[in-house]
Amino acid sequence: MSKFTKIDQVFNLIKQQIDQKKLTEGTRLSSVRLMAKQLGFSVSTIVEAYARLQAENLIESRTGSGYFVVKQNAQTFMPELDQVFIYDREVDPLWISRQSLENQIGVLKPGCGWLPSDWLPEQSIRKSLKQIAKLEHLVLTDYATPQGHKALRQLIAKRKESFEIYVNSTNVLLVDSATQAIDLIFRQSLSAGDVIIIDDPCYFNFQALIKAHKLQTIAIPFTENGPDIDKFEQALHYKPKFYLTNSAIHNPTGATLSLHTAFKIAQLCEQNEITIIEDDIFADFEEHAAPRYAALSGIENVIQIGSFSKTISSSFRIGYIITNQSNIDQLIDLKIATNFTNNQLNSEIVFHVLMDPTYLKHLDWMKKRLNFLRNDTIKKLESLSIIPWTIPKSGLFLWCKLPDHIDASALSKQCIKEGIILAPGNAFSQSKTAHQFMRFNVAQCQDKKVWDVLTQAIEQLKAK
Amino acid sequence: MSKFTKIDQVFNLIKQQIDQKKLTEGTRLSSVRLMAKQLGFSVSTIVEAYARLQAENLIESRTGSGYFVVKQNAQTFMPELDQVFIYDREVDPLWISRQSLENQIGVLKPGCGWLPSDWLPEQSIRKSLKQIAKLEHLVLTDYATPQGHKALRQLIAKRKESFEIYVNSTNVLLVDSATQAIDLIFRQSLSAGDVIIIDDPCYFNFQALIKAHKLQTIAIPFTENGPDIDKFEQALHYKPKFYLTNSAIHNPTGATLSLHTAFKIAQLCEQNEITIIEDDIFADFEEHAAPRYAALSGIENVIQIGSFSKTISSSFRIGYIITNQSNIDQLIDLKIATNFTNNQLNSEIVFHVLMDPTYLKHLDWMKKRLNFLRNDTIKKLESLSIIPWTIPKSGLFLWCKLPDHIDASALSKQCIKEGIILAPGNAFSQSKTAHQFMRFNVAQCQDKKVWDVLTQAIEQLKAK
Repeated sequence: MSKFTKIDQVFNLIKQQIDQKKLTEGTRLSSVRLMAKQLGFSVSTIVEAYARLQAENLIESRTGSGYFVVKQNAQTFMPELDQVFIYDREVDPLWISRQSLENQIGVLKPGCGWLPSDWLPEQSIRKSLKQIAKLEHLVLTDYATPQGHKALRQLIAKRKESFEIYVNSTNVLLVDSATQAIDLIFRQSLSAGDVIIIDDPCYFNFQALIKAHKLQTIAIPFTENGPDIDKFEQALHYKPKFYLTNSAIHNPTGATLSLHTAFKIAQLCEQNEITIIEDDIFADFEEHAAPRYAALSGIENVIQIGSFSKTISSSFRIGYIITNQSNIDQLIDLKIATNFTNNQLNSEIVFHVLMDPTYLKHLDWMKKRLNFLRNDTIKKLESLSIIPWTIPKSGLFLWCKLPDHIDASALSKQCIKEGIILAPGNAFSQSKTAHQFMRFNVAQCQDKKVWDVLTQAIEQLKAK
Repeated sequence: MSKFTKIDQVFNLIKQQIDQKKLTEGTRLSSVRLMAKQLGFSVSTIVEAYARLQAENLIESRTGSGYFVVKQNAQTFMPELDQVFIYDREVDPLWISRQSLENQIGVLKPGCGWLPSDWLPEQSIRKSLKQIAKLEHLVLTDYATPQGHKALRQLIAKRKESFEIYVNSTNVLLVDSATQAIDLIFRQSLSAGDVIIIDDPCYFNFQALIKAHKLQTIAIPFTENGPDIDKFEQALHYKPKFYLTNSAIHNPTGATLSLHTAFKIAQLCEQNEITIIEDDIFADFEEHAAPRYAALSGIENVIQIGSFSKTISSSFRIGYIITNQSNIDQLIDLKIATNFTNNQLNSEIVFHVLMDPTYLKHLDWMKKRLNFLRNDTIKKLESLSIIPWTIPKSGLFLWCKLPDHIDASALSKQCIKEGIILAPGNAFSQSKTAHQFMRFNVAQCQDKKVWDVLTQAIEQLKAK
């Protein structure tokens, strides 16, 4: 950026004069040569500065007669910095997302669903960007094929082998996010009023997505080993078409699916022609691979989805869908109609990062750090009588029961006033039975302020 | 990339031995030190190569006992290169998209809707990527705010001033593409069976999108000055909720909206509470700004959308919606539910390119080249008795009538066999009355093969 210093100086000088109305609408600027002479800069500096002023619509070029100041709106081009909390929004499935995403600066987020950005493999991303800047222009400027970056699709397919899922690149469709993946699958196969099964609790955005599609849901209580099998069997009465779940590390509970439960559920789904949508977004945090429905029941019965936002970056969006080719073909038509095509550049970055030898080391480091912080956070929570419902083997989350008489929504509303965003249980619970539960992200609980505010807020609520 | 040569050599050597089953499942590799000695490379080279083999799941590390070859699936990690045409698909609104997007290599696309990738500002993109690689980690790894990159939103708002549209960044929502912009607006406001007005002909993907939403459409014949006003008035009987159109340079006709027609249509829409969705995607190709509905009728009545895929790059996807703040807030909820958040990195790249002093010059160059090629293409088409319906003032497209008895779909199917993808009229026409019309993209008609194949195909069809 420092290359532009002289151009910046000229640009800022003229912009300031326009902002302060010293140069008013219609005023002709000095010619490039004269301005260069007046300011003691080179002609090319002035040319570039004028071009930039033009790019910001501050001046315009009139052929043959030079550069003129254009009419200025009251508003000038200054980045806004103020951040506003949405205090008055009721806790709903979108509450955590919007609070966590909108409030980026000076706010602590023990409730959010992602890692602090300085945990992510930024050096590898920087290296990838520099490498990609040198690639042929097609990568930088052309549309992706509708199915998306071939080599990345192949790599995704290859990486599934360690979960005993054997697919190839033709079974992989790249999309923009795991959320979009589910959205496309719903749009392809479901109509308003159709019934689907989800977990209770489950990732809150599943509920927001289901609401957007006007679906009917049956929420099955989630146990430490997976969904409650008896309740799942009872739900079959309502002819559900899909079962949407998080495999591996369950969100929000951190529980792991047992092989027995996976077998039972996969069998029930096969027998009743229910397609399982298996969101595998936390796969790379696992220490030991839990069973995957897609491995047990195959991609004719299970659609697997995922993304790289948790372990690489959430700044550029790439997700994927793994399913049979006939589904893929229909999903491509729908994707073109509703989003046109893929992000070629983002696919290229993800591919570079995954191929970077340092990525696996980075994952190892993240997992070790999460293990340490999980134990540390459990201790701190227990000192406040906040007790984990289960001790997860891996991942970011702890699903915890609050002390008696403390309501999670009330506690969250109290804490957000102090700049602490929590994740109250009922945002995850279709049955709204989790008002005493809270999801904590162990990677986002490091700041002492989290504990100070939490302690104080609990005291205040107890006193009421 | 050349930095990795030694690592590449080691990687390839071992990969080859695994592929050829010289190293079989469970085989222990030589230790890093021994391998370094055997091959005459440094220890760090071997470490990196092993890490990369691990990243590709070819070998695994077992703590304390070294590196072992993992079980290999029949399929190995090799990029596929074969390209397959979809000859047998009938011409429908998705025909052009899928043919043009799927067939990337060795195919000519006089029918596609975008510029050849070597026209786009690749140097500016390369420069931006390098600059961004140096920015703070939040840009590279963190989620965007739900509304998207503030400075880019401000710049988009600022750039609208030259069209007499005065908005600020709070009126701008960033999304992933212009297509997604329309999709979100439809989802927010319409239900299956609702009526909307489109142009006949119109951008084919509007029809695909409308079909995905199960809407009813009234297609109004498009004249050289905009939609047919009388027919538009008659359509009001059906209580349409939206009018979806391309402003400025109309796709596919290249026609320009006249001020009178714009006024009449805006008035009819205001009186009948019809929201206009104005797709402004070709704005940067205009020589002189045509009237915008958003300028006439304001953002309470007109939602403007756009993207940068035509003039910056289609490899990274950024679109926008301009509307009032209450709409923006509802659209954000829907966007989080269905796509989670924005592409922070892509926004940053677009912002850098737009701020780059060379961008305006690049646009000028593109416009001059388009003007030259438009005239050139018109002459070549006329020599084949293919006559433009109107002579556009700017932009990529020529909407042309074919010689008598030549059917555009038949001609397109004939030409795709020779690797030439055309854009047959009925793909754009809801009433299917454009079977004698064809859209040509003047920037994609430079190759002599286009003309040879076209000439021959017309001869053959005439002979039938």
